[in-house]
Parts: sequence; structure tokens; C-alpha cells
Amino acid sequence: MHAPARLIDPVALTRDLIRSPSVTPVDAGAMATLKAALEGLGFTCRDLPFEGTPNLYARRGTEGPNLCFAGHTDVVPTGTVAAWSHDPFAAEVRDGVLYGRGAVDMKGGIACWVAAVSRVLAGGGVPGSLSFLITGDEEGPALHGTKRVVEQLMAEGERIDACVVGEPSSSQRLGDMIKVGRRGSLNSWITVKGRQGHVAYPDRAANPVPVLVRLLNRLAEAHLDDGYPKFPPSNLEITTVDVGNPASNVIPAEATARLNIRFNPTHTGDALSAWLDEQAAAVAAETGLAISLEHLCSGDAFLTDRGPLVEAVEVAVEAVEGLRLESSTTGGTSDARFIRALCPVLELGLVGQTMHQIDEQVPVAQLESLTAIYTAVIRTWFARTA
Amino acid sequence: MHAPARLIDPVALTRDLIRSPSVTPVDAGAMATLKAALEGLGFTCRDLPFEGTPNLYARRGTEGPNLCFAGHTDVVPTGTVAAWSHDPFAAEVRDGVLYGRGAVDMKGGIACWVAAVSRVLAGGGVPGSLSFLITGDEEGPALHGTKRVVEQLMAEGERIDACVVGEPSSSQRLGDMIKVGRRGSLNSWITVKGRQGHVAYPDRAANPVPVLVRLLNRLAEAHLDDGYPKFPPSNLEITTVDVGNPASNVIPAEATARLNIRFNPTHTGDALSAWLDEQAAAVAAETGLAISLEHLCSGDAFLTDRGPLVEAVEVAVEAVEGLRLESSTTGGTSDARFIRALCPVLELGLVGQTMHQIDEQVPVAQLESLTAIYTAVIRTWFARTA
Repeated sequence: MHAPARLIDPVALTRDLIRSPSVTPVDAGAMATLKAALEGLGFTCRDLPFEGTPNLYARRGTEGPNLCFAGHTDVVPTGTVAAWSHDPFAAEVRDGVLYGRGAVDMKGGIACWVAAVSRVLAGGGVPGSLSFLITGDEEGPALHGTKRVVEQLMAEGERIDACVVGEPSSSQRLGDMIKVGRRGSLNSWITVKGRQGHVAYPDRAANPVPVLVRLLNRLAEAHLDDGYPKFPPSNLEITTVDVGNPASNVIPAEATARLNIRFNPTHTGDALSAWLDEQAAAVAAETGLAISLEHLCSGDAFLTDRGPLVEAVEVAVEAVEGLRLESSTTGGTSDARFIRALCPVLELGLVGQTMHQIDEQVPVAQLESLTAIYTAVIRTWFARTA
Repeated sequence: MHAPARLIDPVALTRDLIRSPSVTPVDAGAMATLKAALEGLGFTCRDLPFEGTPNLYARRGTEGPNLCFAGHTDVVPTGTVAAWSHDPFAAEVRDGVLYGRGAVDMKGGIACWVAAVSRVLAGGGVPGSLSFLITGDEEGPALHGTKRVVEQLMAEGERIDACVVGEPSSSQRLGDMIKVGRRGSLNSWITVKGRQGHVAYPDRAANPVPVLVRLLNRLAEAHLDDGYPKFPPSNLEITTVDVGNPASNVIPAEATARLNIRFNPTHTGDALSAWLDEQAAAVAAETGLAISLEHLCSGDAFLTDRGPLVEAVEVAVEAVEGLRLESSTTGGTSDARFIRALCPVLELGLVGQTMHQIDEQVPVAQLESLTAIYTAVIRTWFARTA
């Protein structure tokens, strides 16, 4: 039914992708390059744009099980181009190293999975379906990217059985670490309103600053938990406090602060928001000043349990690299927080050390090795699942 | 030896002074108007300019005791002139009320004392000397005004036995309150330096905000004292806290705060600075972060004890207004904090309700009453002292 699969070179495809300067929200042809490669492998590509954000869902096959690869074609800004030793969008290779923005985060990862798929197809294909969920808005606000595509696929009843996200999860050596979950992240804004006045007449004023300080001190000293299996203890950071009162003889009218909590599955964003509200209400009752809070949870904590996906990755990494990988939940958020609603998900990709930095780079040999790992993941997963 | 004294009209002199728009640091002829009046009364006037600030020390007589009047010819800005019901420098009288910037703070007070002196001289003079210590920089930085004149007079060995400052000390009714001292004022700047980083990797950063919050919370909850005779308890106000970090995922590198302590004679500015340094050192030791402080004490607390000056004022107010006055130490700082180094000092003047406001105003009758009070103060003080 499909044209015979041809082999894709992961290095060549990575270079093609880097040459599109797709700094969020610009696409610059990156998505078209990927689609052309996938259509050449027999995939059916669906554009799923939301509010101008380019998104792609591509599938090859109609039967289950369906193994998905997720990623993003957008990249972070270059910073000072003059500080780069190579043009960040020229994708030059020197001494076996490929330089360019997106080399590890994560055009290289995408190209390796495409190359792995081409090898699997050349070897006879899979007993089920392969799919790609790719967005052009992961590094930006991420409001109309993977989040919206997942909502759309769930509404349609599209079944995906497992998903590998190609983020650069490796720490020091390819395959030494995968991400099997992420902490949740809650941002909260706190505002205390008082009554302005002269410092010499404190009875006629109500200073909001000591009230805010009392609340923040309690929050900073609170013990959230002792950790959770696979997770470090939850952590609260006060990221800013601002009053902006230039007058040394004036008691200010208002004081604000913002904090961020990275939390393990002991908590939910809703429960932490309620806890913060309670702490604020207690201080408000003690002091008589009004304290208002706003919360924004960008994702609850999640953990992907052991199962065919984690096992397939362990087997693949050990077979190719001779490594026992570490399952981790550290680091910032990723689009895996949206995909977890669909299916088991984990992150496996290149060594991330140069991501977001000047001279982002990847050894060409590492692209070959990741392609071999991904090939083994696909084969092993289908062997254990189908 | 001197020309015979003529009577000065306090209302006319107040109006003449207001018509010089002497907004700090501008003089606009205000000092010359005053000097002309004093020379007409036989005073010897000495200009004592420092760094361009006009100052005047005028004395009539060479013998002791020497009763001084202190004040300032400069005024605060008008604010929006269009908001005034009368031109702020036209000194218009309507329905028995004189309007203008400086009417109560404190051109009116100066004019009343000059008028009182003219009455005392017309009645036979005093057994000693009368003097004026007037500056054109009280409402501004006050660095080269009364402070410098006091230093100069002390260096010369000039003897002043008592001093009335003509600040608008009255609260609701003329003579209901005098100021017999002032709290001290200490401003302190606190800076905590940490190490910037990503909120997801707190181990690689050191957040200065919770350290600052811990210190500020201790300072805000500290009990400074229970008050001091004639003084309220000392009071600490945190006037601002600023980090200015717009990024919700970044731990900031630095956090700053400023506080002001208004303190009674239980403390000195030096002792409070040392206490703040100790508190900061303790928190620095607990947290491992560096905390730096800077202190600026604009004046220690002082109290003028009962004696001939306070008694003369009590007698005068009771005789003219039938009031028992209240001795207070509330409010902001005044030039009395410099004069206390020379002699007993207190503040007695008009009702201050409209000072620094739009439509600053004084009833003409109140200027007449204050002149009568000041006249009685001069007579009573010399009767009890000379």
C-alpha cells in the first residue's frame, strides 16, 4: 500500500531542520521539512494549527497498538550571534561535531526518531501504527501547541498507547538518564493592601510590608514533604517581593510577592493553592489587613510507572550503550505533562548540556547512537506490546 | 542707643513675607523683608550663608540672658496652583482668613514673634537680649541651614539661653499643644546577596529573598521599648522591599529593603544601628548569605525638661487662651533637633492643619492671638530668668 521505505540519514535531516531558523513563534519551513520526510516514509500528515501555531499529527498505519513520538520544531533564541563560533543556523560540522541552534533541543532528536522509523520500516515494519505529535510552540507560551493537539486527539477518540518525547534527557552520556515524570509547578501572586501614611504617625496608617513578610517567612519555613518515590522533596521559592516605595518617610499602601512551588505527587496544584490561601487567611486574621492571592498551576506532578515503555527503553539503552539508565523526575516542565493524559509517556534524548546555550552542539556519532537506541525502542516495545 | 521701637502688624508682615515665593531653595526676597523689619526694631543682622543657603542671625542687645526665636522663611511647593481657591503667593484675605503658602508654616509664626518683640520693646524692652535664628533651608535637605548656623554660633561661643521655634505646633486650637522634644529617626538600607539560578534547580542557586524575609520578620516583631516619659514607644517601619525580578522561573541574585525607626531617648541612633547589624549578622550566620547594611541617623531623640522656658509658655497660653497646653513629642523632625545642642528649645506656633496643603490658610484673629501669646512668653521668660 505504501511506497517502499528508504533509509533516512539522521545527520542530514538534523542539518536540514537546523537550517530553518524556527525561533518560536516562527516556523521558517521547519515543519514542511519534517512533513516531506514523513510523507516519504508513508505517513499521513494532519496539520492541526491553533491560533497560528503550527502543529502536526502524523500516523502510519491504522491498527493498534500505536507508538507515538512527540517533540517540537521550534527553538530558543540564539543570544548574541557574534558569540557563536559557527553560524547558529548554518548547521556546520567540524571535527565530527554538528553546531547549531536546536542541535540537541531537539531537532536532532526528531531526526533520529525519523531515521529509526525508516530503519524499522526497511526491516519489515511494525505490527501496529507509528505516529508523530510535533508542535512549533514548546519553547514559547505553549498554549496552542501540544496541549491543544492532545485535547483534539482525545476528543476524536484517537488511541495512542505509549509516547516517547525526544527532549535531551541525557545528562553526561547518551542514555544515562530518562525522565519518567515531572514535578508540578505552581505560581502564586500575593498582594497585601494596607493604608498609606507618614512613618511618624503609624497609628494613622497600616503598613502592609510586615504583614507580607510574616506570611512569606512562614511559607519559606514550611516543610512541604520529605520527597516521594522517584521525586525530591517539594520546594518553594519566593521569586520576588516588590513595594517600590522611594520615600523613606512614607508607609506604603501595598506590597506584593510572587512565589513558585515545584512539587512532587504528594501534592496537587489545587491542594497547594488551598494551603497558601489558608496561610494567608491566618495572617490576615492576625493583622487585620486584606491579603489576596492568585494561583496559576502549569501542570500537576506525574510519574509514569514501570511497564512496556520503560522496559523497552531500558533494554534499548543497555543493548546499544551498555548502560543502566537512571529514571529521573528532575528539571523543568515539558510537553510530557500534557501527553500523560493520553498514555504512558517518558523522555529520552540527546545529552542536554549545551541546550539553550551559545554553540549548542552534538557529536555526529551521538546522532547515530540515538538512532540505534530509538530503533531498538520501537522494536522492543512492539515485541512486548503487540 | 536704638531708634524708638515702632509697632509691627503681624498680619501685614505675614502678607509681605508670603508675597515672596520662597519655595526651597529659592529666597525671592523673603529674607530681605524680614531683615528690614528687624533692623527697624534695632536688631543687628548677620548673614550666615552656607553653600548658597541664606541664613540670618539677628540680635538686639549685648547682655544676657538671650532669648532666641528660630524659624525658616522657605516654604514647600504649592502643588497644582489651579487647585487653590486663591493665588498661593497673593496673600489674599477673605472673610477674615489669610490664604497663602507659608501662612502657617511658618511665615505667620515669624511675623507674630517680630510683632511681639515690637510690643515688648514699646513697653520698655527686656533685661537682656532678643535674637532670631532664621534659615532659608528647612523644608529642603536642611544640610546648610540651622545645623550649620548652630555649629558656627557654638564655635564663636555665642550664648543663647532658650529658644522658641515657631513651627505650627498647635493641633486643633491655638496653644493646645507644644513640642518639647522629638523622637530620633534612623533610616537603614539592607541588602542580601545570593546566587541567581533556575527555580527547578534550587541546589545550584541561593535565594536571597527568604533570608531577607527572615531578618525583616524578626525586626518587625522585635519589641524596642515600652515608651519613655513624654514619648510613645519607639517604632520600626519597613518602608520598602524590592527585588524587581520579572521572571517566575528565576531565583534572583539580590534583595533589598529599607526601614525607618522613630525612637525615644531609650535609644540612640548608634545603638540601634549596632542592634540592626547584630540581627543581620545572626541571620547571615544561619543562612550563609552575605547581608550588608547602611544606616543614616538624621537626629537622636531629645526632650526639653521643665524649666523657665516651658513654664513661661504654659503661663502665656493660659493667660491669653485660657488653655492648659499639652506637651508633646510626636510628629516628624524639625530644626529643634539642631538647636537643642545650644539651649533648651521648644516649638510653639499656629494650628498646623493646612500646612503643606492646597489652600494653606490662617484666620487673621489667630495671628493676633499668637502675637499676644508670644508677647507674654517673652515677658514671662525674662521675669523668671533675668
